[in-house]
Amino acid sequence: MSVKSLSDTPPMGWNSYDYYDTAVTERDIRANAEYMAKHLKEFGWEYIVVDIQWYATDAGTRRDQYQYIPFGKIEMDEYSRLLPCPDRFPSSVGGHGFKPLADYIHELGLKFGIHIMRGIPRIAAHSCSNILNTDITADMISDPYSICSWNPDMYGVIPQAEGAQAYYNSVFQLYAQWGVDFIKCDDICRMDAPSAKDEIRMLHEAIINSGRQMVLSLSPGPARLEEAWHYETYANMWRITDDFWDDWHLLKQMFERCEHWQNHVSAGNYPDCDMLPVGMLGKGFGNERQTRFTKEEQITMLTLWCMFRSPLMIGGELTLMDEWTRNLLTNPDVLALLSDDCKATQLFRNAQTCIWHSYHRINGFNYLAVFNLSGNEREIAVPPCLLNQEDFKMICLKELWTGETFTCSTKNLNIRVPGHGASLYRF
Amino acid sequence: MSVKSLSDTPPMGWNSYDYYDTAVTERDIRANAEYMAKHLKEFGWEYIVVDIQWYATDAGTRRDQYQYIPFGKIEMDEYSRLLPCPDRFPSSVGGHGFKPLADYIHELGLKFGIHIMRGIPRIAAHSCSNILNTDITADMISDPYSICSWNPDMYGVIPQAEGAQAYYNSVFQLYAQWGVDFIKCDDICRMDAPSAKDEIRMLHEAIINSGRQMVLSLSPGPARLEEAWHYETYANMWRITDDFWDDWHLLKQMFERCEHWQNHVSAGNYPDCDMLPVGMLGKGFGNERQTRFTKEEQITMLTLWCMFRSPLMIGGELTLMDEWTRNLLTNPDVLALLSDDCKATQLFRNAQTCIWHSYHRINGFNYLAVFNLSGNEREIAVPPCLLNQEDFKMICLKELWTGETFTCSTKNLNIRVPGHGASLYRF
Amino acid sequence: MSVKSLSDTPPMGWNSYDYYDTAVTERDIRANAEYMAKHLKEFGWEYIVVDIQWYATDAGTRRDQYQYIPFGKIEMDEYSRLLPCPDRFPSSVGGHGFKPLADYIHELGLKFGIHIMRGIPRIAAHSCSNILNTDITADMISDPYSICSWNPDMYGVIPQAEGAQAYYNSVFQLYAQWGVDFIKCDDICRMDAPSAKDEIRMLHEAIINSGRQMVLSLSPGPARLEEAWHYETYANMWRITDDFWDDWHLLKQMFERCEHWQNHVSAGNYPDCDMLPVGMLGKGFGNERQTRFTKEEQITMLTLWCMFRSPLMIGGELTLMDEWTRNLLTNPDVLALLSDDCKATQLFRNAQTCIWHSYHRINGFNYLAVFNLSGNEREIAVPPCLLNQEDFKMICLKELWTGETFTCSTKNLNIRVPGHGASLYRF
Amino acid sequence: MSVKSLSDTPPMGWNSYDYYDTAVTERDIRANAEYMAKHLKEFGWEYIVVDIQWYATDAGTRRDQYQYIPFGKIEMDEYSRLLPCPDRFPSSVGGHGFKPLADYIHELGLKFGIHIMRGIPRIAAHSCSNILNTDITADMISDPYSICSWNPDMYGVIPQAEGAQAYYNSVFQLYAQWGVDFIKCDDICRMDAPSAKDEIRMLHEAIINSGRQMVLSLSPGPARLEEAWHYETYANMWRITDDFWDDWHLLKQMFERCEHWQNHVSAGNYPDCDMLPVGMLGKGFGNERQTRFTKEEQITMLTLWCMFRSPLMIGGELTLMDEWTRNLLTNPDVLALLSDDCKATQLFRNAQTCIWHSYHRINGFNYLAVFNLSGNEREIAVPPCLLNQEDFKMICLKELWTGETFTCSTKNLNIRVPGHGASLYRF
Repeated sequence: MSVKSLSDTPPMGWNSYDYYDTAVTERDIRANAEYMAKHLKEFGWEYIVVDIQWYATDAGTRRDQYQYIPFGKIEMDEYSRLLPCPDRFPSSVGGHGFKPLADYIHELGLKFGIHIMRGIPRIAAHSCSNILNTDITADMISDPYSICSWNPDMYGVIPQAEGAQAYYNSVFQLYAQWGVDFIKCDDICRMDAPSAKDEIRMLHEAIINSGRQMVLSLSPGPARLEEAWHYETYANMWRITDDFWDDWHLLKQMFERCEHWQNHVSAGNYPDCDMLPVGMLGKGFGNERQTRFTKEEQITMLTLWCMFRSPLMIGGELTLMDEWTRNLLTNPDVLALLSDDCKATQLFRNAQTCIWHSYHRINGFNYLAVFNLSGNEREIAVPPCLLNQEDFKMICLKELWTGETFTCSTKNLNIRVPGHGASLYRF
Repeated sequence: MSVKSLSDTPPMGWNSYDYYDTAVTERDIRANAEYMAKHLKEFGWEYIVVDIQWYATDAGTRRDQYQYIPFGKIEMDEYSRLLPCPDRFPSSVGGHGFKPLADYIHELGLKFGIHIMRGIPRIAAHSCSNILNTDITADMISDPYSICSWNPDMYGVIPQAEGAQAYYNSVFQLYAQWGVDFIKCDDICRMDAPSAKDEIRMLHEAIINSGRQMVLSLSPGPARLEEAWHYETYANMWRITDDFWDDWHLLKQMFERCEHWQNHVSAGNYPDCDMLPVGMLGKGFGNERQTRFTKEEQITMLTLWCMFRSPLMIGGELTLMDEWTRNLLTNPDVLALLSDDCKATQLFRNAQTCIWHSYHRINGFNYLAVFNLSGNEREIAVPPCLLNQEDFKMICLKELWTGETFTCSTKNLNIRVPGHGASLYRF
Repeated sequence: MSVKSLSDTPPMGWNSYDYYDTAVTERDIRANAEYMAKHLKEFGWEYIVVDIQWYATDAGTRRDQYQYIPFGKIEMDEYSRLLPCPDRFPSSVGGHGFKPLADYIHELGLKFGIHIMRGIPRIAAHSCSNILNTDITADMISDPYSICSWNPDMYGVIPQAEGAQAYYNSVFQLYAQWGVDFIKCDDICRMDAPSAKDEIRMLHEAIINSGRQMVLSLSPGPARLEEAWHYETYANMWRITDDFWDDWHLLKQMFERCEHWQNHVSAGNYPDCDMLPVGMLGKGFGNERQTRFTKEEQITMLTLWCMFRSPLMIGGELTLMDEWTRNLLTNPDVLALLSDDCKATQLFRNAQTCIWHSYHRINGFNYLAVFNLSGNEREIAVPPCLLNQEDFKMICLKELWTGETFTCSTKNLNIRVPGHGASLYRF
Repeated sequence: MSVKSLSDTPPMGWNSYDYYDTAVTERDIRANAEYMAKHLKEFGWEYIVVDIQWYATDAGTRRDQYQYIPFGKIEMDEYSRLLPCPDRFPSSVGGHGFKPLADYIHELGLKFGIHIMRGIPRIAAHSCSNILNTDITADMISDPYSICSWNPDMYGVIPQAEGAQAYYNSVFQLYAQWGVDFIKCDDICRMDAPSAKDEIRMLHEAIINSGRQMVLSLSPGPARLEEAWHYETYANMWRITDDFWDDWHLLKQMFERCEHWQNHVSAGNYPDCDMLPVGMLGKGFGNERQTRFTKEEQITMLTLWCMFRSPLMIGGELTLMDEWTRNLLTNPDVLALLSDDCKATQLFRNAQTCIWHSYHRINGFNYLAVFNLSGNEREIAVPPCLLNQEDFKMICLKELWTGETFTCSTKNLNIRVPGHGASLYRF
């Protein structure tokens, strides 16, 4: 059973972070799952992911001071494994963990994911808690020097320590029992800690050992380009930037990152541009708002993510989504780009313009995306030589966002693109 | 005419540097070309490359103090273009440049290459020399702050300056007249100078403008992984390390570099492991010797270079080559790996062992290379799951260096590999 | 009451680390104190310092694996303050802390010092222990991201947190009750942690607040030259290198550090060259040995430390000290250099030779130290102009290590100095 | 003859750069000298310094493109030594160099200084020009890799090369013949080039060898704190920041630099805060203007420079100076702080406030400077303990900028200071 065989397109789903921060509840998760099953599933959307600190009792209660409360109370079983906070996830009471919630999501025809932090709870190490099926205690596998720079909950494990793999195995055994389909592991992707590279491999082995297929997603970025082989061998998704939000500068920078990683996209291997901050965002951060991205910028984002074949994870609250946004996310012609039969490459990039091309090896479709990175509407000429073609004249193209079809009458393809906007052609 | 269409395998040839340093002569070049035509051409070897400072009158005369004499005398035409030193290249007398030598090499059925430095001669800038077909003088396009850190001959050009592209065009126009097939441009690949990235593009445009196909090879490395798109778009070869010599530590480090660049090898795009320091080396450096590599290390090197599909450039003096070395370089089963129909990937690497796999998409051959990176002979077990196979049992393999054929009798492929050595199987 | 007024020469004493590592006991401390009182006190030696982890129950018991056992058991009072381990410091039983031991050392006419780590015990934060005379608990002032890179015991405090200064005050109040005269605070001097600079000031304020004079010594180095003002304002001693041991390369490097810091030595302000690894060393490290320094190197070390006016802390076990070493440490003519009336400057330094000069502003003595940094005996000529003098001829000099007096007969002072050795003249 | 004996206060003068950039003429120099002799000399101002590119024929003629024209024409004698451009310095015609101008300035009772670049003209190296009194030519001592990052005129010399010291000697011999009193050497202080440290020593030796006392001033900063000994041993002034201009942020940053360097100010050794951008500035830069500093900021600047005992070099055009500015620069009570009998220290600094103290060891004056680094007028309380005093009550103070005298009636000294302003007290 190969983990890579799991996905034949990049994972598509919803993640609780952009709207709820640390404070999402079971009711919220169920509501978003129900929305997805009803409105989005048919277009390929399927993952529902509970993001950070589902185990933290006080998560979000001192948000003016802390995103993550230092030394806050957490739920943990007798084997040093974190459990959902029962106040926020009532179906977990009685030792059921996330199983009832996962079952419900599976009944909706969807898949269930959770966020974890690299390592083992600090409190487990300081209280010398047990590790399942071993004589080892948590202090013996915890590295007191391996901490996350932005979250205070965990110590990294010592990869060489006896019992360290056993701990990760015990954790993923529990997740398999719960029915988890997707793991987003944080504090690991950019390898801030010296042991992070080894811990990525240990997570992979723990998934194999669990007997259940789970997508392994690594955060936060930027991932290290020189570690591409390691990500490709042991994980399914890895973040290529730090947290992405509704800010044009971050979106513009993604073009450089996508250039860097374009040769590393293949079936089961998806460099990750991060969540799509669309619709209603930021409630848990004390900053509830409609996305700050213009419609043009959102089209640019979706075009790039789909061309590049990034995983697609919706960040906004689904139950508050307007129709324009839902249409943006459910354009079948655009989502077809995600197929593992498509291979995309950047053709050109400077400060004003970026051009990508993709080709579907089965049905022979060419896709051409033209991005206007400047703030003003401009006419952009695409010379045919850029695609190793003789001429655009007489070629019939369909613009996939408007649905318009036309035949080019000039050698160059000359198009007007609004500021920060994109056009996406199939021919 | 696309430069990329030129090569459908990585370039194979001989380069004067490892044996002659800066002091090669026309007689030396002809002798090596004749050897290649007679003994190597039939196996695919075809380029004869004159390396650094063919324009420097005193090159090599103060070798105890300098590799490159500061402010040494150089040959230059009235348009700021360097010419071969007539003492060393007598056929160039009378303004013929490298044309007679290139013609001779072409007559032998081979191709001719030269080394150049990024930029324009410093003396041209200080003497305000002319640029062909322009009113511009050299001082107007030379950047006095853009120097090479190890060679004193040139200033970089100012990419934005009027006349800068015209200068590069005039230089490549001359090379086209001479019949040059291959350009190794130095002080450019690792982009030490801020303008180097632009100058790579300018070289590409000058080749296109010349109307002659020339392979563009960039030195020295390490190339920047994050600039892969730029190299792939504008060049054919780019060095992935600094100068490579007959030293095990450098060879061992190449495995990491090949891991990094494996996804960037394709037709016309060849990350470059540098010359093969085999046979007799180092005369021009005052250190004439047989290669310090053991036979096992040379097999390891050839196996890696061919698996990875690096360009192959022989560094040793051809006319002094022994039979063992010639056989090493002319094994048709091994050289078949260079085909653009092969695609190779690293399967495993730690401090002791590295395993690569390649697959020929037309004839269906699998290739498996097993490298023993430790100093001692070891038995290495290759589990079939590493290749996504069930079992090695009953599979028939041919070891391509010994020519032995055998059928595996165990689930794992268990092989003995000498220290620093490699085995290469086809099945 | 100014802390600076405490010392009118650099502190002189003994420290337990170089011989005992983390495992010193009360009996060891008393034996060394008795030796000092009997043999060294009359020459100015007075501090007895208990170095790291006197609070750690298992300190030293797993020395093959750890210098500092992660998550090891520690002694702590109800107010998050560390206490001596009663097994190793039996007089501390019954809540007496270090008071009985300090009393004994004071009775011997000596002064008592202890080592502390920056911050508050991690276990206090995780168990939400109390802070004396406040409603604050340890978790409220502990920074979970502020750890030491080489010792796992503490978290740094959050300087801005209410209760943070109160905690340091409560700790120093306890030390004042015990009768502590000298604090060596570790993990603070080179400011690895962002809060370390503020914590230095907080320690100073806690000393002032305690009402007891205590020398404040900061470790480890290298101290930051650009923070000299901060050290000078808030501390008495600060380490100018990382740990110093009996290794010539470390000793040679100290000359550069002394050059850097020479303008920052004044009454109460002593850049610190670290302990003197003389005599018997290393038992606690599992490597008991006589110092690896040659006699010449030890003379070089003492000459430099005294010229520079570094604090002098003996690292070797006093009770095992031989006569040669005791004489080295009790030369009154040499120790006279430590006076705050002396001011020393480097006159010359290259790879082979270093020359320092000091001048006693009251008695008018000139001191000249000539160091041979090479491995071979050499004749070194000191030209008079180096000291802004006309001539050495007819000047009468005393060499302070040999006691020999002579009159110079030449313009230059020409002297033979053994390899790695030094000569020290007074005139 | 010691260079250090030259100055018993920091040098005070005028420099052509801030107003004229590269384009100053002899007439300008004479006019400013005449103004200084008439209005400023009696207060201690005495140096007239011709700044950069007095040897460059076309200096300033392409100011829209270049501050320093690449490969521009320069004046040079047969021994590779730069000469004043005769168009701009007509008295230099006939081989007189700067002698007539220096003579005139000496007649006015002033001293004459010039700016030089580290090294030897590039054109001298490329044309193999002679070196005075040697068989060496310029190419033999020039380092083709040692260039300045912002000026294209020179190559650094190779310190080990035979003839390199001879070249510097020949240059300073010429300057001595001219009657130069002050050398500002550029591209050397922050040691960008590996040879710069040695070249500082070579300049010192060339001055000694010339037989004429000259102040040696090093640019640009920031000087390296760890090289303080080298600056102190071989130079008189060294810049502690990059170029300083009329910008509050630069002025605020100077407080940190002065903290760093305060222990390195002594007779003949003056860390240098750079020119005073007061009065009319920027004509040569195409940006003629009155200083952008407010009056309060100018008082802050003069107070800090004088307290710290920086050299004082006026940057503004003297002949256009208004009365307020002249009074600022000629306050005898303030300038008294420059005496080598004064020693200043920073007492306190945070983001809003900085306090310095100085003490005159002969006449017993205390000086207290209180700086308001915030933008708003604030009341600042100076506690007496900061000066190791019991009480300010009954102490009589004179504020030196206003001339007001008053007796303090409170324990703290409570003063109102305008935003970006300073008060300076003597008591």
